[in-house]
Amino acid sequence: MAGNTIGQLFRVTTAGESHGPANVVIMDGVPAGIVLAIEDIQKDLDRRRPGQSKITSHRHEPDQAAILSGVFEGKTTGTPLAILIRNTDIRSGDYDEMKDKYRPGHADFTYDAKYGFHDYRGGGRASARETVTRVAAGAVAKKILLSLSPDIRIIGYVKQIGNIISDITDPATLSLEQVDSTIVRCPDSNAAEKMIALIEKIRSERDSIGGLAEIIIQGIPAGWGEPVFDKLNAELARALFSIPAVTGVEFGIGFGASIARGSEINDSFVSDKTGIKTVTNRHGGIQGGISTGMPVIIRCALKPPSSIPREQQTVTTSGQPASITVKGRHDPCLLPRFIPVAEAMIAIILADHGLRQRQARI
Amino acid sequence: MAGNTIGQLFRVTTAGESHGPANVVIMDGVPAGIVLAIEDIQKDLDRRRPGQSKITSHRHEPDQAAILSGVFEGKTTGTPLAILIRNTDIRSGDYDEMKDKYRPGHADFTYDAKYGFHDYRGGGRASARETVTRVAAGAVAKKILLSLSPDIRIIGYVKQIGNIISDITDPATLSLEQVDSTIVRCPDSNAAEKMIALIEKIRSERDSIGGLAEIIIQGIPAGWGEPVFDKLNAELARALFSIPAVTGVEFGIGFGASIARGSEINDSFVSDKTGIKTVTNRHGGIQGGISTGMPVIIRCALKPPSSIPREQQTVTTSGQPASITVKGRHDPCLLPRFIPVAEAMIAIILADHGLRQRQARI
Amino acid sequence: MAGNTIGQLFRVTTAGESHGPANVVIMDGVPAGIVLAIEDIQKDLDRRRPGQSKITSHRHEPDQAAILSGVFEGKTTGTPLAILIRNTDIRSGDYDEMKDKYRPGHADFTYDAKYGFHDYRGGGRASARETVTRVAAGAVAKKILLSLSPDIRIIGYVKQIGNIISDITDPATLSLEQVDSTIVRCPDSNAAEKMIALIEKIRSERDSIGGLAEIIIQGIPAGWGEPVFDKLNAELARALFSIPAVTGVEFGIGFGASIARGSEINDSFVSDKTGIKTVTNRHGGIQGGISTGMPVIIRCALKPPSSIPREQQTVTTSGQPASITVKGRHDPCLLPRFIPVAEAMIAIILADHGLRQRQARI
Amino acid sequence: MAGNTIGQLFRVTTAGESHGPANVVIMDGVPAGIVLAIEDIQKDLDRRRPGQSKITSHRHEPDQAAILSGVFEGKTTGTPLAILIRNTDIRSGDYDEMKDKYRPGHADFTYDAKYGFHDYRGGGRASARETVTRVAAGAVAKKILLSLSPDIRIIGYVKQIGNIISDITDPATLSLEQVDSTIVRCPDSNAAEKMIALIEKIRSERDSIGGLAEIIIQGIPAGWGEPVFDKLNAELARALFSIPAVTGVEFGIGFGASIARGSEINDSFVSDKTGIKTVTNRHGGIQGGISTGMPVIIRCALKPPSSIPREQQTVTTSGQPASITVKGRHDPCLLPRFIPVAEAMIAIILADHGLRQRQARI
Repeated sequence: MAGNTIGQLFRVTTAGESHGPANVVIMDGVPAGIVLAIEDIQKDLDRRRPGQSKITSHRHEPDQAAILSGVFEGKTTGTPLAILIRNTDIRSGDYDEMKDKYRPGHADFTYDAKYGFHDYRGGGRASARETVTRVAAGAVAKKILLSLSPDIRIIGYVKQIGNIISDITDPATLSLEQVDSTIVRCPDSNAAEKMIALIEKIRSERDSIGGLAEIIIQGIPAGWGEPVFDKLNAELARALFSIPAVTGVEFGIGFGASIARGSEINDSFVSDKTGIKTVTNRHGGIQGGISTGMPVIIRCALKPPSSIPREQQTVTTSGQPASITVKGRHDPCLLPRFIPVAEAMIAIILADHGLRQRQARI
Repeated sequence: MAGNTIGQLFRVTTAGESHGPANVVIMDGVPAGIVLAIEDIQKDLDRRRPGQSKITSHRHEPDQAAILSGVFEGKTTGTPLAILIRNTDIRSGDYDEMKDKYRPGHADFTYDAKYGFHDYRGGGRASARETVTRVAAGAVAKKILLSLSPDIRIIGYVKQIGNIISDITDPATLSLEQVDSTIVRCPDSNAAEKMIALIEKIRSERDSIGGLAEIIIQGIPAGWGEPVFDKLNAELARALFSIPAVTGVEFGIGFGASIARGSEINDSFVSDKTGIKTVTNRHGGIQGGISTGMPVIIRCALKPPSSIPREQQTVTTSGQPASITVKGRHDPCLLPRFIPVAEAMIAIILADHGLRQRQARI
Repeated sequence: MAGNTIGQLFRVTTAGESHGPANVVIMDGVPAGIVLAIEDIQKDLDRRRPGQSKITSHRHEPDQAAILSGVFEGKTTGTPLAILIRNTDIRSGDYDEMKDKYRPGHADFTYDAKYGFHDYRGGGRASARETVTRVAAGAVAKKILLSLSPDIRIIGYVKQIGNIISDITDPATLSLEQVDSTIVRCPDSNAAEKMIALIEKIRSERDSIGGLAEIIIQGIPAGWGEPVFDKLNAELARALFSIPAVTGVEFGIGFGASIARGSEINDSFVSDKTGIKTVTNRHGGIQGGISTGMPVIIRCALKPPSSIPREQQTVTTSGQPASITVKGRHDPCLLPRFIPVAEAMIAIILADHGLRQRQARI
Repeated sequence: MAGNTIGQLFRVTTAGESHGPANVVIMDGVPAGIVLAIEDIQKDLDRRRPGQSKITSHRHEPDQAAILSGVFEGKTTGTPLAILIRNTDIRSGDYDEMKDKYRPGHADFTYDAKYGFHDYRGGGRASARETVTRVAAGAVAKKILLSLSPDIRIIGYVKQIGNIISDITDPATLSLEQVDSTIVRCPDSNAAEKMIALIEKIRSERDSIGGLAEIIIQGIPAGWGEPVFDKLNAELARALFSIPAVTGVEFGIGFGASIARGSEINDSFVSDKTGIKTVTNRHGGIQGGISTGMPVIIRCALKPPSSIPREQQTVTTSGQPASITVKGRHDPCLLPRFIPVAEAMIAIILADHGLRQRQARI
């Protein structure tokens, strides 16, 4: 059974390859009555778009979205919402060398092992090109969330690239504008400058670099998440690990938990006129797989892009030793464009769980 | 929509609370013809059982499994396989104080926020008691895997508790016997001794402690995993985060990816008579969400159990300040009993994906 | 992928065979806060129970239900609700002759063709024994419906057995008591008497007989049903065809549609203080797969039970010609016990769709 | 939870309205390696196309399909297969009168009751326009079936329109060419002539007419179908009832079962060199929800189209009495165009179950 659908009540099914005619997404379960315009989708696509700055891939895709169904007179109809994004800037010639070779670090080999063939055109479905539909769906998810719980805000930023670590004392106060004020999506302008310089240096060295993103979700009401298998953290982690290049995910104190004692990290409950909350937030906004109402804090590690324009050792599809120099227009660092994709995936999971929470009680 | 089913082709649905009459699991999609005996299940339950050593909870549950359906003359029939495990050692009196108070760090509050009531009997469904059915299902999953791909081995061990770090140079060579040779499930006997002493000290201080587990999966054929949303790493991470207390999950180089360069971590392909593999395994056995055939390396961080028998500040269910001292028979450290649960969840995901891979090609 | 789960939001998963230790059902997605007692379930099981009258199977099963989880202090908790019903009156000796022969008209052969083995103990999972869990789930479904839309009433009755047709002028006014006033569940007492006599005659002739049931659902609000694949009629039909022996299902004018003209059967809309309805109800309560608010009218045809205690020609499992006389305690006519099973399946579908309708709009 | 996906392993998700820009379908779970050309899809779309003859709707849609993804070098890739069909001949002006009125017999009212708005443009998603994507998916399903079990043939024909009943003695021998030899898709040319004349007369009287279709499926191997809820007959019935205007479905002896005795209708098993089969086929090819290997025989009743160009009584969306004369280009009888849609839905279910059967045994 294939795995191109995510969500239970807000069901997102995507299709499309890097070098096919188009990418398309069908969202089933969008409730009727949500105000939605193409601009809502386009502005998120523009944040993900390749060629948006000097430190991203130079592929030029306008990524113009078209709504095919599910919206009538400016509102969602309750019927499936389909969005089409055509691929326009395709240079398959770049991929001739890969026709018979597996790129190191790339999914060429595993796709072949799985499906028995090798779609060498820009990685086919394994390319991060497919995340364009995730972002389109995420934009719709955000509109659902706006209706369900208008205080929800999902803000991600680049926390680290290589050894450069941003200094953000209170991530919970960050705005989208602050994050987008630098092309690397790091709101610490000093760190951002160094990150940009590092990425340019890495590209000039025909290499690539990894990094760390932190995402803060505010305003989730207490009670979202579905034990025991669809816990909110479990579902968020799955969604984030489904994004290419993610190698680690942690919530709250995360890997710091290993050395912690219960007496140090249990967050005490208090109550004020807005309700019950915790004094501290070491738990990171989720307990027992269900949101507590405190901000959810997530960190994701990303590996460097595997496609680098330098000679590497590999094998051909028939197992013969070979060397390969990967051409194509690749990002030297995925983090800046990862931020909108991660936010979109989180929005998809939250919209699904916000709808699911409407079923928890009679 | 509730979330008590995991898996697509091997579908595991569980039910049961800490202090109800029984826990039960229905597995749908077990192929017909698998040899299965109650002992296959019982021996895994015994590894998870409370009261198994001086460093675990002192609750005494025999955890005797009964197969209710789906097996005939020693083989699976293709019809749903149900397993029942009764709760026997219930001391609800321990929980009287919690009737009106939320335990800090526990899911009491979030369950109440979600469902509108407070099952104070040992945490109800939020208790790790429910993992007993996961282990039963995991035992069946292992039998499926044995039929699908007999070389698969899933071995977890305790890598770290507090500041004590085990020194395991080649985890890929560990055996179950080595892991189980110490009650803390750390095969480094020096570290194990210190870990046991630390846990006893922590318990005597009426506190609890976190830790880190590492799990190695060997023998998965290349090709398992379902892009783009049900990638193998995404599904494994979801399954692991669904286990109580997990705060972080990483694969391969994991969080170390942040500082890595592509040229350093791309694993080169080579070919020998057994097929194509990589020279190194920094990718951790999964590329593009699909297994490469190399060992899968996973690390999980667990927080300390929140239930500690010392006075903590909290609020009552009506929001009044209160203090609470959590009684009951709790583990001071979850790691030793986490290992069989994590292995079971991994087996469930792998069995599902092994079956799913049978559909990848015509 | 196996098929032992029905429903999307109210998810019912069943397990159990005719001659295994027990049947069990897990219901996931039962909203928290529904008042539920074991008696609610038991009274429906009693209506389905074998041995309830002289015209049913003589197997004696008390069918005592036990709630294993999901209910606390008399209310559902939102966590999975498991119900166990043990098999007690098992006479496997009755089935010795079937060990190596396929019973004509029975699923022995197809189960063997599918799963590669032959569970000769009373038909295993193919036996109508498994409907006991459907009825238990249906009882819970009715409680959900009572909370969602208290005016819903599901009343089925036996319309025809053999050539005896009941004369019910206004089925919409029938009560459960009227239906249950005769052991054949036909509220036309004249017809009922003849039906009972016919069934007794058929049994004495070591034969079996088919029949027709009509079910009326009143009080469904307009708007339930999920186009385009989960239309209310499509889901109801699927649920009814999943019950053993159903050979035909029709709604409203049903097969009479073949000779109808649009001008004759379009039901005109009118409006009164209770809302918009149709003057006539030839459409049978569903239009475009969505309930109109008018009564839903369904008719089901059932074939005679295949197990008859007379000699029939068949083959052995290895394909050799053989004769067989089916022993065991079988119903000579399924209709009386079909009624509570059909009502249960309808209740399950309606509960699911009632919950689903809560998602149609923001 | 919305309902626009059908199938478990072959998952078909559709989107699109009658008067929106396009209809689109994503098929997930198409195994890699199936030879597929656009012509395979187009020829089925051409059989369903409006305007194909004098007795169908006069809407002119070329219904040109475009494959957006999932096919590479003439073969399926295992990744999602998306097909786009644009709407070109839209005359929304035809629908001005319906803006504020509910058409009798149509789903206008129920869609409004469900979603809270009224898409008056040709019925929106309630229009049979959406079946265009079903036919596209059915064409792919047939290619899957061809790989799984090349002897499967699905042939439907028009058995009855009004009082005209075709005389087909052995439907199992019918070919597609025979069926398509008349524009009404009735292979009995005498009956066909009368049916065509009747439909033309009905149209001239500004009325519409119902009918009956029979579909025969040959060559399904024994063993397909998933008890207890996804039985093959249950799934086929659901798929057929999901098609607009279907009011009844029966298998084998169907409603004739009511008067049958077990001794009359149990089909005896025999064995020859091709395997075990039944002497007669009163069971209609499915026993216990699983295929027997004998032909599956299905009959579907369809009501007359509700849209008729004559004055009818109704109410406005605000409940005021009104009269309406439905304009637009509607079919006077659905049967001829129903045949390819029914065949497509059956192919979708069979492809899903053929893939599912690959999981029945280890």
